[in-house]
Amino acid sequence: MPSAAVIGATGYTGALAASLLWRHPSIDLVAVTSRSEHGRLDDLYPRHRVPLELEELDFDRHGGVDAAIVAYPHGASSGVVAALRRSGVAVVDLSADFRLRDPEVYRRWYGDHEAPELVDGAVYGLTELYREEVAEADLVANPGCYPTATLLALAPLARAGLIADVVVDAKSGVSGAGRAPSDKVHFVTADENVNAYGVPLHRHVAEIDQELAALGAPVTATFTPHLLPLDQGELVSCYVTLARASDQDELAGLYADAYIREPFVELTDRPPGVRDVRDTNMCRISVHVDPRTGKVIVFGAIDNLWKGAASQAVQNLNLMLGLGEGEGIS
Amino acid sequence: MPSAAVIGATGYTGALAASLLWRHPSIDLVAVTSRSEHGRLDDLYPRHRVPLELEELDFDRHGGVDAAIVAYPHGASSGVVAALRRSGVAVVDLSADFRLRDPEVYRRWYGDHEAPELVDGAVYGLTELYREEVAEADLVANPGCYPTATLLALAPLARAGLIADVVVDAKSGVSGAGRAPSDKVHFVTADENVNAYGVPLHRHVAEIDQELAALGAPVTATFTPHLLPLDQGELVSCYVTLARASDQDELAGLYADAYIREPFVELTDRPPGVRDVRDTNMCRISVHVDPRTGKVIVFGAIDNLWKGAASQAVQNLNLMLGLGEGEGIS
Amino acid sequence: MPSAAVIGATGYTGALAASLLWRHPSIDLVAVTSRSEHGRLDDLYPRHRVPLELEELDFDRHGGVDAAIVAYPHGASSGVVAALRRSGVAVVDLSADFRLRDPEVYRRWYGDHEAPELVDGAVYGLTELYREEVAEADLVANPGCYPTATLLALAPLARAGLIADVVVDAKSGVSGAGRAPSDKVHFVTADENVNAYGVPLHRHVAEIDQELAALGAPVTATFTPHLLPLDQGELVSCYVTLARASDQDELAGLYADAYIREPFVELTDRPPGVRDVRDTNMCRISVHVDPRTGKVIVFGAIDNLWKGAASQAVQNLNLMLGLGEGEGIS
Amino acid sequence: MPSAAVIGATGYTGALAASLLWRHPSIDLVAVTSRSEHGRLDDLYPRHRVPLELEELDFDRHGGVDAAIVAYPHGASSGVVAALRRSGVAVVDLSADFRLRDPEVYRRWYGDHEAPELVDGAVYGLTELYREEVAEADLVANPGCYPTATLLALAPLARAGLIADVVVDAKSGVSGAGRAPSDKVHFVTADENVNAYGVPLHRHVAEIDQELAALGAPVTATFTPHLLPLDQGELVSCYVTLARASDQDELAGLYADAYIREPFVELTDRPPGVRDVRDTNMCRISVHVDPRTGKVIVFGAIDNLWKGAASQAVQNLNLMLGLGEGEGIS
Repeated sequence: MPSAAVIGATGYTGALAASLLWRHPSIDLVAVTSRSEHGRLDDLYPRHRVPLELEELDFDRHGGVDAAIVAYPHGASSGVVAALRRSGVAVVDLSADFRLRDPEVYRRWYGDHEAPELVDGAVYGLTELYREEVAEADLVANPGCYPTATLLALAPLARAGLIADVVVDAKSGVSGAGRAPSDKVHFVTADENVNAYGVPLHRHVAEIDQELAALGAPVTATFTPHLLPLDQGELVSCYVTLARASDQDELAGLYADAYIREPFVELTDRPPGVRDVRDTNMCRISVHVDPRTGKVIVFGAIDNLWKGAASQAVQNLNLMLGLGEGEGIS
Repeated sequence: MPSAAVIGATGYTGALAASLLWRHPSIDLVAVTSRSEHGRLDDLYPRHRVPLELEELDFDRHGGVDAAIVAYPHGASSGVVAALRRSGVAVVDLSADFRLRDPEVYRRWYGDHEAPELVDGAVYGLTELYREEVAEADLVANPGCYPTATLLALAPLARAGLIADVVVDAKSGVSGAGRAPSDKVHFVTADENVNAYGVPLHRHVAEIDQELAALGAPVTATFTPHLLPLDQGELVSCYVTLARASDQDELAGLYADAYIREPFVELTDRPPGVRDVRDTNMCRISVHVDPRTGKVIVFGAIDNLWKGAASQAVQNLNLMLGLGEGEGIS
Repeated sequence: MPSAAVIGATGYTGALAASLLWRHPSIDLVAVTSRSEHGRLDDLYPRHRVPLELEELDFDRHGGVDAAIVAYPHGASSGVVAALRRSGVAVVDLSADFRLRDPEVYRRWYGDHEAPELVDGAVYGLTELYREEVAEADLVANPGCYPTATLLALAPLARAGLIADVVVDAKSGVSGAGRAPSDKVHFVTADENVNAYGVPLHRHVAEIDQELAALGAPVTATFTPHLLPLDQGELVSCYVTLARASDQDELAGLYADAYIREPFVELTDRPPGVRDVRDTNMCRISVHVDPRTGKVIVFGAIDNLWKGAASQAVQNLNLMLGLGEGEGIS
Repeated sequence: MPSAAVIGATGYTGALAASLLWRHPSIDLVAVTSRSEHGRLDDLYPRHRVPLELEELDFDRHGGVDAAIVAYPHGASSGVVAALRRSGVAVVDLSADFRLRDPEVYRRWYGDHEAPELVDGAVYGLTELYREEVAEADLVANPGCYPTATLLALAPLARAGLIADVVVDAKSGVSGAGRAPSDKVHFVTADENVNAYGVPLHRHVAEIDQELAALGAPVTATFTPHLLPLDQGELVSCYVTLARASDQDELAGLYADAYIREPFVELTDRPPGVRDVRDTNMCRISVHVDPRTGKVIVFGAIDNLWKGAASQAVQNLNLMLGLGEGEGIS
């Protein structure tokens, strides 16, 4: 049974990844690390019930695992990933450090990169779109939560050349803002509230544009995230101006063709709610033609901590290790 | 001091209207009616502290008041309003019955109309846009909550001829769905959830299109409302494709010109949150140019029960009765 | 593999029971029934992903299963349970109908009973307290959610003869009030609110008294439930006047002796939160001596839909069928 | 018109106090101070709409006001209050520094005191209990939120000599924990959660015991606060063992005698919800005899930021300045 470590296990996504691997039937979680916190992970997160002691990262020891999920902040991740790769560890990286193909684009949004030589070999881990590449990869850049929902919602339209323009209005629960305390995530600030943030320029838009182009839709997307008073869950509402006229039947066919065999994508007639996908690796999608305007509206709902981060990381890791794609996350 | 009644005081907006009039310094609330409920209003809504007995509507008695706010459902309102008008009562109607100019459009969305002869004389009560007409009116059609936020957010662009196309992604608290119990408004359904509804055709879009056209923007808007896990509050995120290029400075000037003297509109640099306007008659607006796409993003936040319904009704009533516009709602 | 049905699968607890059995590795869920609703269960509850058609209860067909979980309202359950037992079906009943030993007590709180002859043979299914009896039973009365948390929190004290008096202040999420829409469970009523209900006499107190006496504490408990703005989760705060002085060490020893080997009870030093046990069969308990008053405070946290209902039902069913106690609920 | 300042206006209670004084018809708010933050108060709290610049505290300037509300942390307050008093400023202090009569008790819970000489002259500002003393006072120690609700709920029983023992189970919204960011007040921690804290010894119990004794009930109370997923609101559930038998009629009479003329106390038959008193200076109380145990259960609901802090401070200030008690808070 392959061994694994979670590097940076005290944030929300790292801790959830540790929880999933701890219960995984075919992966042996042997270590969880933290840069600043000590004690047992189940003291920090009773609900995850992972009875492992947090360790300081030590490449002598942790370089010996077969695989790692790295949950460091953007910028801090690339150096650690490079070291793990030198030790031959298969890595799924939850940061943005290996998602952007163009070093100039990376620099503009995130600053300097510590391991640019690894970028070309990294596979963008939106599993449903790059399954074969992921299976061959040693380094997978796990997508951001917003790109995950947006790209799964738009891929069938992009591939069909149907997207002339798109507005993405995204709504996320507070866990998406991370565990660091701040006024923004204070209960009294977020409760009974909703507001946009990162306006007009949120970093995830670079990732969305890059991947839409790769799918066949070279557009400049309008993307605006909003913070909602809930903990886990993310909904993207995508408003597409079509490149040519279409109708509900054609669209239903496109989406069925794309996803009917996908174990982690669900198509529905009614607009999905995030509650439908909470604590799952599912993306739930509905597509609608607005008969008044001809625009197409696509909704995609995921759990930002699961399919938007930790469970998709395990989905990718399963493929990289030759395991069943859904092991430990179904 | 003019006397007033609230006709239909047991729903959320009617009860709030009663609460505002009960404390109003220059209006004397003399009656609250209900079609089906009995007892005192403060038994039903302790928080509003209106110690009046609910009465059955009786035109002999209630026809003698100077003014009324009618909070009946769409369709049920027009007949009652007509009777009150025959008695000479000044009326603010919270339903959709007198909002739509075109009887065909009304019929399509709402069905038959019981008092079509009154439609032409009714004034659309978005106070900031139709202040003078409201002051002269005997019958005011109070706008829907979504149109209120949307039109205030878009009016300066519409008047300047800048709107080529617009997508409105609206987010509302659960009180907007009304007091009638149902699975949709069950706490366990709405909590930790978000989903679109009324897709692709929500009735408020007819009102938005009508009024945008009146302001100078004859577009067909894309409008999608979402239900959020909060009680009071509404945010509209408007994505505008411009008719010609503009920039942040021009837009800031347009909005300042339109609203700098308005007591109930606030302009802000940062995207507004609904918490900022809770329990107020305020609409809080920010406008942003997306430098990547040239689109303009406008956010408008209101309290759906206040500016979106009851306090705007009082604002209109004040004008109709020659009182200070902000009396009882500041 | 034994076959099972969930009788009454459209309420919150029945649907969750169906979900657990559908994924159970050693039980074959073959039918889900409803008295009034039709269609597929995953249309009603997308999140449970049980692709079975709801059926009308038909003893010819459903009498042939090996086991059933019955999730009918109090009073409506006993007749159905009796019919299933006549067909030889092993039953876990989620209602109160078979929990109370004394027919007079049952009548006082719930009214007439349709199958009093089955009461004596029914086992009270608080698994940790009656494991052996459950394993031998054909009919298990699954405890109420409040008694489950309360009795697990108090059992070590009760058995040690330490309880002279007890006040139980219980706090429950809204799912405990059931799925039927009403003003009480309307989001706008429950959100940002907390209040006691069922004061001063809630039906669960009869069950608590009966079982505390059986454990060795023949007291009349004071019990007050409160409704909280959360969906799943229940906390009981128990204030015990001791029959004799004790100290933290003795109490810690009592609780460790009682629960150290229990897979579904966790002891903790800090007061537990309901978030720690959400979506689990766990009961999390802490015990504290108040040095100022000598009183003992015990907190017990469960998920009211899981350990308080559906997953405890599966835990019991596992024992009745000779399966591993934790199968399908770990 | 008397002038006033809020010293420490950036926490939740200080900011609310500033908001109430800013709109007060008979007090002129001339300054708001902060120890560490700059800019305008309405930038920090848009919803309070107080357009004043935050200043550093400067006794030369701020010593000239007629009155001040001090909202500093425990321990930091006494020195500032002493300096203000030396300048002749009438002070309402929101901290615990002048609440406890016994210097030993203060030291045990809070540490050293910087102005012990002022303690004897300070009046405990639970307005309904000490109205005349407050009217004569120069320095009022505003009660803690928990003591406010608890003492109003229990005062009629305490005065009648009916309390032999009492357990107070208190439930508070997150704003009670203050504005400083931490894991405890992170939305993801508090949302969908409830847990006790400060177990078994919370500092407010000293204040409760002191004042119950002063009212005639020299008991050692059991007091346990819980954190709830709501922003504003506090409910105390008080379980009283009576010193002698009583009944519902006697109790109803006691409470009516005590509170029937109080403008800010409401008696109700049903257990009150915190939503009933949100954003008000009200305390809403119900009292119930448990016929099974003879215990009396009293519920008291307040808004922890209003009657539990800022609006009660204004209520006291009104009396100190010879104004109407309810001015600016009704």
